[in-house]
Formats: sequence, structure tokens, C-alpha cells
Amino acid sequence: MTARDSRHIPRDSAPQETGRRGQITIHDVARLSKVSVGTVSKALNNNGSLRTETRERVIAAAKELGFRPNDLAQSLHRGKTFTVGLISNDSFGRFAMPIMEGLEECLADSRTAVFMANATDDPAREAQHVGQLLGKRVDGIVVTARRADRRAKLTVPARGVPVIYVFSRTDDPDAYCLLPDDEGGALLAVEHLLKLGRRRIAHVTGPERFEAVRLRHNGYRKALATAGLAEGGGFLSGVWSEAWGRDAVAQLFQRGRAAPDAIFCGNDQIARGAADALRERGINVPSSVAIVGFDNWEIMADATRPPLTSVDMNLKDLGRRAGARLLEMIAGKPLKGVHRLPCTLVVRESCGADAGP
Amino acid sequence: MTARDSRHIPRDSAPQETGRRGQITIHDVARLSKVSVGTVSKALNNNGSLRTETRERVIAAAKELGFRPNDLAQSLHRGKTFTVGLISNDSFGRFAMPIMEGLEECLADSRTAVFMANATDDPAREAQHVGQLLGKRVDGIVVTARRADRRAKLTVPARGVPVIYVFSRTDDPDAYCLLPDDEGGALLAVEHLLKLGRRRIAHVTGPERFEAVRLRHNGYRKALATAGLAEGGGFLSGVWSEAWGRDAVAQLFQRGRAAPDAIFCGNDQIARGAADALRERGINVPSSVAIVGFDNWEIMADATRPPLTSVDMNLKDLGRRAGARLLEMIAGKPLKGVHRLPCTLVVRESCGADAGP
Repeated sequence: MTARDSRHIPRDSAPQETGRRGQITIHDVARLSKVSVGTVSKALNNNGSLRTETRERVIAAAKELGFRPNDLAQSLHRGKTFTVGLISNDSFGRFAMPIMEGLEECLADSRTAVFMANATDDPAREAQHVGQLLGKRVDGIVVTARRADRRAKLTVPARGVPVIYVFSRTDDPDAYCLLPDDEGGALLAVEHLLKLGRRRIAHVTGPERFEAVRLRHNGYRKALATAGLAEGGGFLSGVWSEAWGRDAVAQLFQRGRAAPDAIFCGNDQIARGAADALRERGINVPSSVAIVGFDNWEIMADATRPPLTSVDMNLKDLGRRAGARLLEMIAGKPLKGVHRLPCTLVVRESCGADAGP
Repeated sequence: MTARDSRHIPRDSAPQETGRRGQITIHDVARLSKVSVGTVSKALNNNGSLRTETRERVIAAAKELGFRPNDLAQSLHRGKTFTVGLISNDSFGRFAMPIMEGLEECLADSRTAVFMANATDDPAREAQHVGQLLGKRVDGIVVTARRADRRAKLTVPARGVPVIYVFSRTDDPDAYCLLPDDEGGALLAVEHLLKLGRRRIAHVTGPERFEAVRLRHNGYRKALATAGLAEGGGFLSGVWSEAWGRDAVAQLFQRGRAAPDAIFCGNDQIARGAADALRERGINVPSSVAIVGFDNWEIMADATRPPLTSVDMNLKDLGRRAGARLLEMIAGKPLKGVHRLPCTLVVRESCGADAGP
């Protein structure tokens, strides 16, 4: 349960009786506006040449009758369904949901609906979902995951249905992949720590088989190199958990080793574990050791003591951009390559910097 | 990022060329199997009387050509689209995703796809989504939320499209609502603590305006009353956060007050805050104080020290049941009323009970 209230849907908009049976048809609109069915079609689809007053009369009649053109019939006619499919492999929804939100926001303007299907890493189920989406004649498919690593190309047994990979990528050079700029995000984090005067910056992160781990490590090294610093703070690769964050602090602060004055963590769970372990050792965050996390997972970053400064991958923006690119691809524009969108740093209290206005 | 690997999709299944243009049609199947188009339709839809060898010849021809019947055209013909819409108001996905998973699992057997749209508590957007779903002629609509409280009835401007509320409810007596049994879940939790010998059991929970808070409180009181105990442990209502869990422990353990030997918490975040605060006061969990949470949010329950025993609302089962009921409603069965599914207790280490085999 979360603390926010759900708002209520107004009841005042009178339901119109346009159900499956006894439905208002284009013939009723034609009769009321005293034109042919063809003219109604032209007026409502905004094509063909019609006098303005005719078009307006038809639109008024359609409105009066509560006529809702049947999208299915329209889509057969036009060859477009104004539907895109989203295939997700993120059963927690933590990464997929903001991407979905951005995608919906972007596509709402072109009256395109998003059809989400959850494959949960099961190839058979993914193939089944693709089949269902093609059966619905989606105009395009978005593939997302809960990590930005390479996956096999999605097998789409149909021509002319563009696919876009978001927070997910494949080795196919013809694929279009949209990802967060992990290296740039790490640069932001470490530059922030350097600007605050930290010099012995450690990096505690997840498993090195993750591309994101390698890219964030690169960003960390580049920022230190630019500042003329060696990797004195220490690099520790483990798993994506709080327990690993606590263990890593035990390693970094063992006797006889020069302790770091900052820790850049590969995700917010590691950062939270590190903050807990430091507090339990009596080491103050941020005055003795500053911490930056990655993901800006709000529920985790806000609950950390002190609240966590963290890199945000802007997944909603990624979703929005994916929507815009997919519409271009549906319109016939060939797009390919791996594209990365910038991360931002969300400043809270764990580095001692002012959070700003 | 999470630690699990994404599996890969096999590349060996050869893509079939059944794209929008140059597509295999029913005419190609008729030509190859040397029957009429009507016969192909009968054979593939498994209706009408046909000789077995004719039916088999058509199916073999369709398979050979990789013919995929156009679901859109079929649905216009049959009046069913084998698509249901899911309207979610859970932008975190924590509650909606397991419900979606269960729903998909149940509906996959009847080849029905789930079309998810996220309204994020915006009534205008919700109305837009409903319009889009009706435009796609969905067979039914599932409404879910991130809390099980009352909401306004969903306005569906079409007859014959059943609506089911899951983890979400409305006051309309004709609505069908599926919810977890919050009171029963609380009974399970408190009975577990009683069985382990705890006698001064406190209840720390969220805001009382939530129906779930009131129901869980009822369950707590009933379990104590059955055991012949007063509410000696204390009842504290606050917000759904770790910080509140910590504050509540400060109140429960202030000087001059009889301390509880167990705390039943309204959610896992409160439970985690309570566990942290007890550890920091040097009070052992579970030997001095046992803790039970609610939600069984694994990422939170596993990270708590010690790992949290928690009530699971079985949201995936709720989704599965919703799918089965919706299919019945689509088939014409009138269903209504508020129905609650049992919760289960997931035992970890925070009560000192064995986790079992």
C-alpha cells in the first residue's frame, strides 16, 4: 500500500448507448446530416474535398448521435490500427512502468494506444505475445527489459512492423536501440563528489557481466583521470543488493587500509546498504563519507538515512523518445543504431551538497 | 538493476513472411488445398460440417504457407476480439504487475490477449483509455489500482462490455469486485505470533482512512479476543513508511510503558523501519520482539535484518481468478458482489519460527 489517494472519476458525463448491439452506425449519421455515407466518411476522416459547412454538419450530427467510428473496421480500411505493442520482461515493473508511461504520453497525441504484454523472460511466452500482437495488426513493437544488456533479436514473423528496443538491446546492426547513457551518468556522479572536495572515491557496484556495470566503471575512471586522480578509493564488484553494500563497507574500512571519503554505488540498494553499515560503524554520512547511488529509485532513496543523492536514468523520457521514434519508423523512416539519452543527478542529503531550491 | 539474467530467445524458428504487404491470404490456402474459400474458413474455424480429410488438407496447406488468419477481420466477423483491457492506476507497478501476470496466465489458454493501459489516477486519461479500449472492441475490462479502496464506478459508454474490479472496488452493488481478505490475513499474522508464545502484541499501521487498515485492525482484534487477550500491546496508526515504523518503536518503547513482545505491522515498509529501530536500541529481533509485515514485498522483506515474516495477498492468484470470472461474464454469466481471496503467511526469520522445509 502507498500513501497517496486515488482520485475519483467524475460521474457527470452521461454514458452513450453505442454498445455492440443497437449501435449507432455511419448510416444514422448520413441520414441525420442528409448526405451520403461516403460524404460522412470523408468528413469524419478529414480527407477528400468537402465544403466546410458540409463537414461541420456531419461532425455535429455524429456528435449528437454519439457516433463512435469502429476502430477495427477503420483499421482494416486504412491499414493502420493506431496500436503499438510493448513487450516487457520486467515482472517487478520498476523499469517497465515509467517507460510505459512516457510511451503512452507521447503516443496519446497521435491517438495511438499501447498494448502491453509481459513475457517474464520466457521465450515461448514472448513468441506467443508477438503472435498475438501481429494478430491485432499492431503498427509497431517496443521491446523493453529490466536491464540494458544485449538480448537476441526479437523474431517478428511479419514484414513492415518496426521494432524498437528500449532499455534493452540486441546485436543486430539494423536494430534501433534506445538506452540511458550509463557512462555519462557515472561521470555526473563522480564530478559532483570531486566538486565537493572528495578525493578518495571508491566505486562499489554489481556484477561485471552487466554492460551497465562496465560503462559506469568507465565513467568513474574518466572523471578521476580528468581530475588527475588514481583509483585510490577502491573498486569492488559484487551483486545488486543491500547486503553487498554492507559487506563492501566492511572491506573498505578494514584496519590498515586508507579509508575512502566517498562511495559511488552502482545502484540504490548497494548505496543504502553502505549508508546503513557506515552509520552502524559510527562513521557520519555525509561529513566523513559522501554517498551517491544509481537508479533514483525514490522509495529506496528517500528511505535511506540520510536520503540518497542518486543518478536518474530518466526512463520516462526514454519512453517518450521511443514513442516519437517509433511513429517515424511506422511512417516509413528507416532508423537504426544504438542511441543513448543523458542521465541526471538528483541531489538529496548523502553528499552534503544543498538540494537547491 | 536486478541481479537475475535475462534469458535469450532462440533464433532457430524461421520467420515467416506474412507481413502487411505481400501477405498470404485465405485465397492462397484455398488454391493450394483445392477447395473454396468458404471451406477454408469452415476448416480453420472448426465449424460447419466437413469431411475429416478435407479439414486436415486445409490445415496442412495453411501450415505450409504460414497462413495467419487476420484476427481483426475474424473479430469483426465473430463479434469477439479475444482481447481484454486492463486499466491500472499503479505507476509503480508493484501491485499491478503480479495481477497482470496472473491475468495473462489465465487468459492465455483461451488465446485472449491483455491490453494494459496506465491511467495514473488521471480521470481524463482514464476516460481516454476506456474510449481506446472500446474502439478496439475489447471483450471486457479489468480495473485495478494500487490500493483496495473504493473508487467511482468506471464509466463505460458501451453496452455488453463486462467490467471487473481487482484490488480495487466501487460502491455500485451490481459491480463484481475481487479483493484480498485483509482481515483474514491479519488473523493469520496474529495467530502465528500467539502460537509462538507472544502475549503483548502491538499493531503499527497506516492511515485509518484506508479500508485495508480498518480490516487488518479488525483481524488483529479478533485474534486477540479469541485468545482472551486485551489490546495490551498498543495500536498506532500513521503513514506507510519506514520512518513511521521507527517513530512508532520510539513511542512503544518509551520509559514507563510496558514494552510489547511482538509488533504486527500494516505493511513491510513499516515493519522494516521497526526492525531497524529495534536493532539500533539494542533490542533483539526476534528473541525479544517478533515482527510480522504485510504485502510480502520480497525486495523489502529479504533486505530487512532479520528477513521479514510477512502476509502475502497472493495478487497473482487474484489476477488468475479475475481472468476466469471475466471469461464467464463475457460468455454472458451475470456476476456481482465483493469477493475476497485468502492471504497466506510467508515465514522468514523475524518471528523466530522455523521457515520450514
